[in-house]
Amino acid sequence: MGAEIFSVGTELLLGQTIDTNAAFLAQKLSQLGIDCLHKTTVGDNPGRLIAALQHSLGRSDIIIATGGLGPSEDDITAAAVAQALEVTLRIDKASVRAIKRKLAERGIPQLPSHLKQAQIPRGSRAMPNPVGTAPGFIIEKGNKVIISLPGPPVEMHPMFEQSVVPYLRRPSGAGGVIKSRVLHLMGIGESLVEEKVRDLIHTQANPTLAPLAGCGEVRLRITAKAEDDAQADSRISPLEAEIRRRLGDFIVGADAQQIENTVSHMLRESGLTLAVAESCSGGLISHRLTNIPGASDYLVAGLVCYSNPAKTALLGVKEETFAAHGAVSEAVALEMAEGVRKRLKADIGLSTTGIAGPTGGRPAKPVGLVYIAVSSVAKKVCEEHRFRGERESIKHQTANAAFNLLRKVLESGLLSQ
Amino acid sequence: MGAEIFSVGTELLLGQTIDTNAAFLAQKLSQLGIDCLHKTTVGDNPGRLIAALQHSLGRSDIIIATGGLGPSEDDITAAAVAQALEVTLRIDKASVRAIKRKLAERGIPQLPSHLKQAQIPRGSRAMPNPVGTAPGFIIEKGNKVIISLPGPPVEMHPMFEQSVVPYLRRPSGAGGVIKSRVLHLMGIGESLVEEKVRDLIHTQANPTLAPLAGCGEVRLRITAKAEDDAQADSRISPLEAEIRRRLGDFIVGADAQQIENTVSHMLRESGLTLAVAESCSGGLISHRLTNIPGASDYLVAGLVCYSNPAKTALLGVKEETFAAHGAVSEAVALEMAEGVRKRLKADIGLSTTGIAGPTGGRPAKPVGLVYIAVSSVAKKVCEEHRFRGERESIKHQTANAAFNLLRKVLESGLLSQ
Repeated sequence: MGAEIFSVGTELLLGQTIDTNAAFLAQKLSQLGIDCLHKTTVGDNPGRLIAALQHSLGRSDIIIATGGLGPSEDDITAAAVAQALEVTLRIDKASVRAIKRKLAERGIPQLPSHLKQAQIPRGSRAMPNPVGTAPGFIIEKGNKVIISLPGPPVEMHPMFEQSVVPYLRRPSGAGGVIKSRVLHLMGIGESLVEEKVRDLIHTQANPTLAPLAGCGEVRLRITAKAEDDAQADSRISPLEAEIRRRLGDFIVGADAQQIENTVSHMLRESGLTLAVAESCSGGLISHRLTNIPGASDYLVAGLVCYSNPAKTALLGVKEETFAAHGAVSEAVALEMAEGVRKRLKADIGLSTTGIAGPTGGRPAKPVGLVYIAVSSVAKKVCEEHRFRGERESIKHQTANAAFNLLRKVLESGLLSQ
Repeated sequence: MGAEIFSVGTELLLGQTIDTNAAFLAQKLSQLGIDCLHKTTVGDNPGRLIAALQHSLGRSDIIIATGGLGPSEDDITAAAVAQALEVTLRIDKASVRAIKRKLAERGIPQLPSHLKQAQIPRGSRAMPNPVGTAPGFIIEKGNKVIISLPGPPVEMHPMFEQSVVPYLRRPSGAGGVIKSRVLHLMGIGESLVEEKVRDLIHTQANPTLAPLAGCGEVRLRITAKAEDDAQADSRISPLEAEIRRRLGDFIVGADAQQIENTVSHMLRESGLTLAVAESCSGGLISHRLTNIPGASDYLVAGLVCYSNPAKTALLGVKEETFAAHGAVSEAVALEMAEGVRKRLKADIGLSTTGIAGPTGGRPAKPVGLVYIAVSSVAKKVCEEHRFRGERESIKHQTANAAFNLLRKVLESGLLSQ
């Protein structure tokens, strides 16, 4: 018996919304040491929603539902939970006051549908919504509990942290923890990674080791069950050390630390500044770097130069270089990296140029051909890649490879030679 | 009875991967007129995987599974499907040849685990993998069918299009279509949208109408069931026309057409060029525009200027303006838009400056305060926004609002005055 993540919304069954809530909740449950063994998705249909809730109550101790708490008439989760548990709805007065206050603050005229959100099952306790108007609720019946959260992640995340985490951590809650550590590897394939650690996969029961393939990277997940966090760490550490001994050169980050976090940390430590000139990655490198708070400490600026004239005007790429080598070439990538570094007075210049597709490919220069260059006072390096996939995937693979090249250059001390 | 989407992978239950495959498949099934009523997620555990497959075979006609077909020892979907259907595995010779050819092309040494991927259930037919090495398969038993696809979207999408769509469209397949049209609205809240169309929600059975809230936008989904595509369109069109009559000013796109597609189309039609200067959106506007093929036709360049010195050096924002108003101000936003337009010789300049958080907020200028400006030869406009949420959400809301301001300016013909 364990927890079940229960996503409500026809938009999920129609594929109009990607269920990021389920991933968020799964991560959090894992950190809290609560086994999540089932995930269910149902639409905004009262009959199927109630039937699915009853089925889940039969197999899971904790049901964490998201969605269906808003003001719309399609938002029926509170009523369905009440019916599944055979209780009525009540109006939560504190929630009514909170809804009125928030609407007034935002200058939104109050409508009857706004107040419908304050109706929660009798016997439940409301959880305040720090961002939006719909409260969540927690209701216990026998040894089962249903926790109902709003669908928008911007509301659900803080409500989970503020109200659900303290509830699930209460003394009567789950014992022990399940802790995972995920190592991110780049520049090596899944099969070869598995060859290198096959013996570790087979000899380990706690922690377990599993490889996962992703977009331009391979991940290795170490998962330990333990009494507490410290014991879990002590189980994970020796295995992680052994993996790092065998595959360390390819490890670019761990857990939520993506490669851009690794590079960001290295830049901050080194005190070096970076300027980025993006063609085929189209701003994605800047976007991913600026998702990290404080990126302005090392990122001087990012220039997205899609066209040849922009590359010449902003970066000083020579027209002869385009004529001799084409825009997608090692020569142009190097002039872009050099140009952005010098013009923006940064320590390091990073550039990308390539064919993201779907059009623009030719036999000699197919879709997916990408050049990535790094420039410093001391050194210039350029890598050629041939990526596969759709336009957005090629942009992501380009950004990943650009971060990885920068990581390798920073690590090798190449900049100081 | 209908279809069930069946996602395999412990990484999904641990929240280490977001299940975008499920959304993709749900959309495709809907387009094919196949009702998707269940979504299930299970981990890489043989016992639970086989039990869940058997349970799904009891309630669904078509099971579309993704994941667990790779070379790793955790990839057990083919074996589990075979066991659930009580057949053995066979080696598919065509798949063996394809795997060997792909490895040779890429210069990857062949390992025994690579060939394991060619093992599929006896009685199934292999589907070639246009991108990776693992084939998919389709197996029918009685009136049930299991379709097994690889997990990486870059492999799954083309395999679905090339092999699964023709299979599901075969004469014995599902009759009729379910077609949805989703209208995207910005600058209006979910409750007010619902007030405006409540009568339409209640009087409609086919098509149905449902509001959905998202990140900085509200969506209205019209769903029709019909014999064929043309009949579905004829049911959707009158309702869509009525909604556009009531709410047209707020409608920024439809279906997969996000607001950046709408703006991209308007720019292309108008023949005007755009230059973007991003501070708090950090490259996201450029990234979203360059996700659209052919963005270079109107996007002269995008500059990501996080720091004040970069805003001065690249855009000509005056130091006195920072001193008098602060970097997050209408005055700076306007100078940024004006500067990027003039320096890059574009027809339109678009700029953002704000506080994405989590730090940097003060009572007078809190996290979420964002100024967005548009500049042309004829006009300058600036909007102030106060967004809520986490850093990435504020970046996305900023980009959405910037696209919407640009849309309104382009629509009003403000540029030509």
